[in-house]
Amino acid sequence: MCQLLGMNCNTPTDIVFSFEGFRRRGGLTDVHVDGFGIAFFEGKGVRIYQDDRPSASSPVADLIKGYQIKSKNVIAHIRKATFGQVSLANTHPFMRELWGEYWLFAHNGHLQSLDQIFSDSPQQYYRPVGTTDSEQAFCYILENLRQKYNHKPNDEILFNEIKHLTEKIRPMGILNFTLTNGDWMMAHSNTLLHYIIRQAPFGEAKLLDDDVNIDFSAVTTPNDRVAVIATLPLTCNEQWTQLAQNELLMFKEGEIIFRDCPDDTQFLSIEDALAKARAIGASTNTVT
Amino acid sequence: MCQLLGMNCNTPTDIVFSFEGFRRRGGLTDVHVDGFGIAFFEGKGVRIYQDDRPSASSPVADLIKGYQIKSKNVIAHIRKATFGQVSLANTHPFMRELWGEYWLFAHNGHLQSLDQIFSDSPQQYYRPVGTTDSEQAFCYILENLRQKYNHKPNDEILFNEIKHLTEKIRPMGILNFTLTNGDWMMAHSNTLLHYIIRQAPFGEAKLLDDDVNIDFSAVTTPNDRVAVIATLPLTCNEQWTQLAQNELLMFKEGEIIFRDCPDDTQFLSIEDALAKARAIGASTNTVT
Repeated sequence: MCQLLGMNCNTPTDIVFSFEGFRRRGGLTDVHVDGFGIAFFEGKGVRIYQDDRPSASSPVADLIKGYQIKSKNVIAHIRKATFGQVSLANTHPFMRELWGEYWLFAHNGHLQSLDQIFSDSPQQYYRPVGTTDSEQAFCYILENLRQKYNHKPNDEILFNEIKHLTEKIRPMGILNFTLTNGDWMMAHSNTLLHYIIRQAPFGEAKLLDDDVNIDFSAVTTPNDRVAVIATLPLTCNEQWTQLAQNELLMFKEGEIIFRDCPDDTQFLSIEDALAKARAIGASTNTVT
Repeated sequence: MCQLLGMNCNTPTDIVFSFEGFRRRGGLTDVHVDGFGIAFFEGKGVRIYQDDRPSASSPVADLIKGYQIKSKNVIAHIRKATFGQVSLANTHPFMRELWGEYWLFAHNGHLQSLDQIFSDSPQQYYRPVGTTDSEQAFCYILENLRQKYNHKPNDEILFNEIKHLTEKIRPMGILNFTLTNGDWMMAHSNTLLHYIIRQAPFGEAKLLDDDVNIDFSAVTTPNDRVAVIATLPLTCNEQWTQLAQNELLMFKEGEIIFRDCPDDTQFLSIEDALAKARAIGASTNTVT
């Protein structure tokens, strides 16, 4: 299993505080040592940094700390390889162009080959470059969207289409993902994913993985709204919300605009989620 | 006009020496101050760094100096905006996936709208994200290749197809470009482009833009072969070869494997190339 981090806001925001806790899980406080990637939307453009070194010790991660890039949509991933060798071509997030926009995808989980469901939709528009189950799932989603729509439909249609495609991929294994086009961000939990929406009145937060505090009221305006999505909570004194199993959310401007949640909501404990991952060969020793 | 830098080698090579001279043209020894981008292939993966700050003072460029990434194919670009605002979406190199490979493109020049020639090949597979003439030209090349071939043809066919597409774009303005799929690199000169192939016996080189020397014999093996392509020579004590007007080259493993050159070879002087650029509104004050 890998770990995911996403941020969707109504004003360009610096992710350094969250990223500092998150990156320590790549080799320092956890075992996700097979590379990392982070991508920031700036307008329609993307600033993407990937490294096959552990995020805790990567000079690329040091640059991100120093550069303090502000963005409304950020997606990050630290990797513990289960499928596909450790290489840059297999490092998340994956990026493609769809309808004249860049789309980014990061996945935490483990899927069987999607060849079976891909046979219904041959790879006309999108083909994987690397060898991961994750990039294959991303291409599957894009391929089906592009085949059905020559131009981008509205957000509600898109949400429902991606919900439908997610349901087709889900039986293939474990599928937690974040997906963004620079405007909205989608988050899907199959086993473990949490989010928090920070807005006024802002308080102080303390990182779980490092002895660092931040007073958000000192670095925000009263209108700011910031949604942060992470496999596991990053702070110890805030209330994070766990997504139910098979819940899908679409965030825009830092709030949830569409939600699909099974009627019979179920939540896995961290221990059960790890046991489930272990059972299909996607285990790590610990997720702290 | 912008400036291009490319490297194609038979062994992973560090581009820092060339990049150090090149980046100084972004704001220090020249006026190309509207951002820069550099991308390194690592296997099938790409490490891409772009910044809308001038390369001479960019922390991203500092990282590249410190990181000493080794690659067989590198493509870089510093920008003086003529078309399209200064933004990350307009920063070269541009990247797309074609036939399960990443392709990268950087352009120096200035083209009229390609809408007219695009009308023969609607944007089915590839659409620009930003607003540059350059990304439009890249999408035009990819679109036509993808429409004609469902799978990648061999290098010779590809060379001839890209030669043909280049001829169609050329009447639209000034078209100097580098293009790579991580295996080969193509270079096309319409006005100004130079290359050098370094191989044993290696000597010492001195940068034009900085007081820096390098003794290549100390950092290479006798079998290394490195082709460097640049708008203008980067060193003052080596023999660079100027591409003729409308010459197209394909480099692989550090040597030229295909060449198309008009029978009536013509070479523009730096002054004439700049005058030509100025005449269509793509002038810079100087190119030193």
